[in-house]
Amino acid sequence: MKTQTLTLVFCLFASLVFAQQKAPSAESKLLLTEKGIAAYRDLDAKNPDAVREIAEIKQKIDAELTEEIQVPIPKDAGGGYTHEQHKANQLSIFYAGILYKLTGEERYAARAKELLYAYAAIYKTLPLHPEKKEQSPGKLFWQSLNEAVWLVYSVQGFDAIKPYLSAEERAFLKAELFQPFVDFLSVDGEETFNKIHNHGTWAVAAVGMAGYSLEDDKWVQMALKGTTLDGTGGFLRQLDELFSPDGYYSEGPYYQRYALLPFVVFGQAIAYNSPELKIFSHRDAILIKAIYAAIDLTYGGFFFPINDALKEKNLQTSEMVFGVDIAYEITKDPRLLSIAQYQANFAPIDAGFEVAKAIGGSLAKPFEYTSKRFRDGEKGDQGGLAIMRATTSKNPSALVYKYTAQGMGHGHFDKLTWLYYDNGEEIIRDYGAARFLNIEAKFGGHYLAENNTWAKQTIAHNTVVVDEKSHFDGKLSVAEASFPKELRFDVSDPNFQIASAEIKEVNEGVSFKRTMIYVLDAAFEYPLVLDLFEIQSESAHQYDLPLHFNGQIIHLNVPLPGNKTQLSALGKENGYEHLWNLAQGKADAKLSQFTWLLKDRFYTWSTKTDISDELIMAELGANDPDFNLRNERALILRTKGKSNHYFLSALETHGSFDSKNELTLNAYNQIKSLELIEKDGKKYIQITTKDAGIKTYPVENPN
Amino acid sequence: MKTQTLTLVFCLFASLVFAQQKAPSAESKLLLTEKGIAAYRDLDAKNPDAVREIAEIKQKIDAELTEEIQVPIPKDAGGGYTHEQHKANQLSIFYAGILYKLTGEERYAARAKELLYAYAAIYKTLPLHPEKKEQSPGKLFWQSLNEAVWLVYSVQGFDAIKPYLSAEERAFLKAELFQPFVDFLSVDGEETFNKIHNHGTWAVAAVGMAGYSLEDDKWVQMALKGTTLDGTGGFLRQLDELFSPDGYYSEGPYYQRYALLPFVVFGQAIAYNSPELKIFSHRDAILIKAIYAAIDLTYGGFFFPINDALKEKNLQTSEMVFGVDIAYEITKDPRLLSIAQYQANFAPIDAGFEVAKAIGGSLAKPFEYTSKRFRDGEKGDQGGLAIMRATTSKNPSALVYKYTAQGMGHGHFDKLTWLYYDNGEEIIRDYGAARFLNIEAKFGGHYLAENNTWAKQTIAHNTVVVDEKSHFDGKLSVAEASFPKELRFDVSDPNFQIASAEIKEVNEGVSFKRTMIYVLDAAFEYPLVLDLFEIQSESAHQYDLPLHFNGQIIHLNVPLPGNKTQLSALGKENGYEHLWNLAQGKADAKLSQFTWLLKDRFYTWSTKTDISDELIMAELGANDPDFNLRNERALILRTKGKSNHYFLSALETHGSFDSKNELTLNAYNQIKSLELIEKDGKKYIQITTKDAGIKTYPVENPN
Repeated sequence: MKTQTLTLVFCLFASLVFAQQKAPSAESKLLLTEKGIAAYRDLDAKNPDAVREIAEIKQKIDAELTEEIQVPIPKDAGGGYTHEQHKANQLSIFYAGILYKLTGEERYAARAKELLYAYAAIYKTLPLHPEKKEQSPGKLFWQSLNEAVWLVYSVQGFDAIKPYLSAEERAFLKAELFQPFVDFLSVDGEETFNKIHNHGTWAVAAVGMAGYSLEDDKWVQMALKGTTLDGTGGFLRQLDELFSPDGYYSEGPYYQRYALLPFVVFGQAIAYNSPELKIFSHRDAILIKAIYAAIDLTYGGFFFPINDALKEKNLQTSEMVFGVDIAYEITKDPRLLSIAQYQANFAPIDAGFEVAKAIGGSLAKPFEYTSKRFRDGEKGDQGGLAIMRATTSKNPSALVYKYTAQGMGHGHFDKLTWLYYDNGEEIIRDYGAARFLNIEAKFGGHYLAENNTWAKQTIAHNTVVVDEKSHFDGKLSVAEASFPKELRFDVSDPNFQIASAEIKEVNEGVSFKRTMIYVLDAAFEYPLVLDLFEIQSESAHQYDLPLHFNGQIIHLNVPLPGNKTQLSALGKENGYEHLWNLAQGKADAKLSQFTWLLKDRFYTWSTKTDISDELIMAELGANDPDFNLRNERALILRTKGKSNHYFLSALETHGSFDSKNELTLNAYNQIKSLELIEKDGKKYIQITTKDAGIKTYPVENPN
Repeated sequence: MKTQTLTLVFCLFASLVFAQQKAPSAESKLLLTEKGIAAYRDLDAKNPDAVREIAEIKQKIDAELTEEIQVPIPKDAGGGYTHEQHKANQLSIFYAGILYKLTGEERYAARAKELLYAYAAIYKTLPLHPEKKEQSPGKLFWQSLNEAVWLVYSVQGFDAIKPYLSAEERAFLKAELFQPFVDFLSVDGEETFNKIHNHGTWAVAAVGMAGYSLEDDKWVQMALKGTTLDGTGGFLRQLDELFSPDGYYSEGPYYQRYALLPFVVFGQAIAYNSPELKIFSHRDAILIKAIYAAIDLTYGGFFFPINDALKEKNLQTSEMVFGVDIAYEITKDPRLLSIAQYQANFAPIDAGFEVAKAIGGSLAKPFEYTSKRFRDGEKGDQGGLAIMRATTSKNPSALVYKYTAQGMGHGHFDKLTWLYYDNGEEIIRDYGAARFLNIEAKFGGHYLAENNTWAKQTIAHNTVVVDEKSHFDGKLSVAEASFPKELRFDVSDPNFQIASAEIKEVNEGVSFKRTMIYVLDAAFEYPLVLDLFEIQSESAHQYDLPLHFNGQIIHLNVPLPGNKTQLSALGKENGYEHLWNLAQGKADAKLSQFTWLLKDRFYTWSTKTDISDELIMAELGANDPDFNLRNERALILRTKGKSNHYFLSALETHGSFDSKNELTLNAYNQIKSLELIEKDGKKYIQITTKDAGIKTYPVENPN
């Protein structure tokens, strides 16, 4: 009670002071305009179910209105109370503002105002967050990244209630909250602000949107061109450099998703306020390409978890909801509406209401995923990510072949790795990141130590490890300077899709070339994956090829009896120290074959071996005293003392295990032998099958 | 071609011979009658989507008609070609017959006839199956169980085409196929036939249904009363002894489901042909009770996997489709229709068409699962299975407390064990059976050796192990002679549900009493499970209490650092030899607490300990050279040198991990201390919470 009286006195006083300054106008400048409001009211009258989400937001905010606001002094790290409360408040400010615009009810505006005033009362004098991260701390939050996110949402709430506020109140909030907030992000946080990195994008979006709403062109210009206003930093340079010409974001899909929100909401604000910049046409419509790329970089809605990535992220996250809605507003592509349907949510902005209306009007068309390659690097010349797909009568499958550049600090040492999806599942998988985001008990929700010691290491991926050392010896600066070269990408024949790439000096004196082929052939029940991994070196090495399979072990065609009473770690460093050696033994003299079962389907990996090769069955969990890692298994093919060498492998999908009707079909695979042959100077993979004779497929590598 | 001609000549000859014998009439006697046909035709005309399933069956059989029949000489074990082909044929005969009745198209009858004749041509002279199982082999199949199943389906197909066949043909099939088949099951297989066991049920159902259709009352009487016709075997005695008075089947839910099909289809045939037996009223309607029990013994549609059980089985299996449809025909209970909707299938018999019609008429009502206890034993005095449930706003949860009798050869040594379900998942789980059904590469699809060495052993369950020995020393005959006694089961207060049971001499000189309480209290976000496990013994022992949790390890309140570079098996026998000892250390001096995460929710197990207790984190996989076991983890609480002792534990469900919005709430639990106190000679569990003070709950054990 006392606090409220004091606040009131202070506000009266403040009004006198700030009435004399130039106040921002009462006009809303950001993403919810009269157009969206009209669309909402029309839908609400005719088809209230289409805007059910607004009713849910109303319910949430109405419940909050029965309680006093909570603006605690910042104390906790990610996942803790004060952290989550400030995040909750940013949403409350945003939603309350939106509700005021949509319904005209002043109690919503009053709530947003009360929260903004509470922040205005403390922000200037707040010290850096006590749990600050070493790099770029925040004040409300442990890292300035969260601080920028707060502003992106809150300034939209402010923008919505501008007409409700008096000129003095607007001026007051600018002086006491937004100006210091912008200063904190752009002056104190200048280095991050000017960074060509997703942290920088959040900062410039926050400052730029504040600039439009608070009508401060200086802020807008800094956001567009960096603090020095010369274009060395800022949004435009980020657009030019962070995405490849195909819209691929250098850190990979997980961060592509995360970075998308500030890109698209600020983009939309620019489009509304600075139409002369034609921002959505900038660089051949790179923003729109980036949104489509994020959609393409998924299977079953979930992002490919390459580099640092949490596997639970899918197209339903709010970043993608904003992205898809805004892309639809620009493109009117009806396929985006089916993604919006999968999201089952829309953004409460003009674009979102347009999507809701279009879905109500049954305009949606299926989004058909097709084979695609995304070039990496600003100029598109730093390798890429190839996705080969087919939709059979029994679910889609997807082969992901990664020959991108390193992808900055969140990149993994996984040159020329691959993933495979089928039947709605990860079949050949990537560990993703070792992190329990926002779970305080797990190292405060940070990336775990095991993210460096395991998840980033080469052995955690489906690519060759030389002498048990990670690519580039696990050195980021070296890895950043190098990137694969695409030799071939051709999916013009859907029954024979091929991608090939090479990288030099991935370890000292060692170069890789990998060709992955995705075949649809009546000889095989499902798409067949062929994999030729060629290694060049003048000196002898040990080469390990891991296969991170997902499923229950059914059969190995060579005896590989598991260790019975004792287990040891497989190695001492570079990720090997995290693997238990479950079993180790000789490979088959000709072809080693391994069958596993996942859900109702069998998978068989066949790989050409000789009697000097070894197979190792390994399980994750050694040197993991805090039980931070999932206990997943991998089969490792090891060959020793080889200089030039190649691995030739195939992955078959076959059969069915029908537990309902207790019917098992084709539990055995087709391939009997795999050979690399040459005819007229060209390489071919020759397969002997059980039922369809000999099949020969070209390895067309033009180089 | 040649074979066909020979068959034709043989048939002509046979007709002459069999025309002189008494032939079965042309009248159909089994489960699809004019009533079902009329219902089908009506639905097909008005709402073809309701009988889409028949269109699918038609499509399947039409496709088969384009190919020659395949009736191979039996050779393969379960999962192999000949095994699966004979199974496929039994369905083809059944479906073709059904289609003939529904559509009147003779090509279907001709196909069923062709298949039946092909079997008639070989059956008499077939030797025992080459891959025969030691107990009761079949001729078409490796075990006579499959043989009986074949007849249950095939005789229904025959029954449907009776009007299509001439009297001579009916007589021929009886003499050449059904008579020898019945002889094989009832004479050669007399022991199984008279067994009070699910194998016996399949055999009597097959013979009894053949008896009705082929109009041989001797077969019917044998089926009802055993081969000696004195009621020492047969269906009626099975009904009296295999189910408890509550309809619980002694082997547990997995086999309850499996056994249900012969029970209900033969029951229905009896009801049609021998109405005077009032079979569905027999023993207070035990057949109907058994169907309801099977429904109640599930979570999320999946059967509780106690005893030998494959976890993939749910209410959608064909046994349950027949069961639910037949139960609906008898009871007209509209809640059964919502189960039928979940099944998304109906049985192509009278009862199934009635269900399809009722669903089309929107008669379905939700099946609300409630807390229930199923008594075990013929007289209901051999313990039981208690299910305590609550449906909160965020998904239902279920506590299963098992104090049943042993359950014959498929029973596990798991006296007084428990399971817990929440949020659609297994939280505290049971391994189920170690078996890859029908996967030949895995020990021919049989139960694996690890089913005995691991899955049945006590340590594989959530109950106390004495001196690392399984209950009753793992001896079936001893276990069969003993059973728990229920002390209390009271769910009348939904906020305080309690079950308590005891068992004497579970190991020599050791008795158990366990009380499980399921509490809904505002102090806890979700239902709270309390567990008082009291052990009586005059001599000192080691007691291990395992917790087979499902999820990712988040936090232990005592240091229990995982072994880093070496692992050893936890023991040498009784299942311990299959566990790797990941970590072992001292328990907390007062209360050991363990938190894990599954999907978006946290679980914390708190257990009263002292500094002499130990905790062991274990993982399955030792002594498993063929990688037959899933690598699941368990936490084991160990106390040594105790005679009388009690374990007092609680399981809390709390918080949320919202990966979409990156929001974590209540990652920490509420319980700070757990004490067993006495007041006025009564025991209470006293809990100190973080936010709701002290809570006291009675342990009302009347004895």
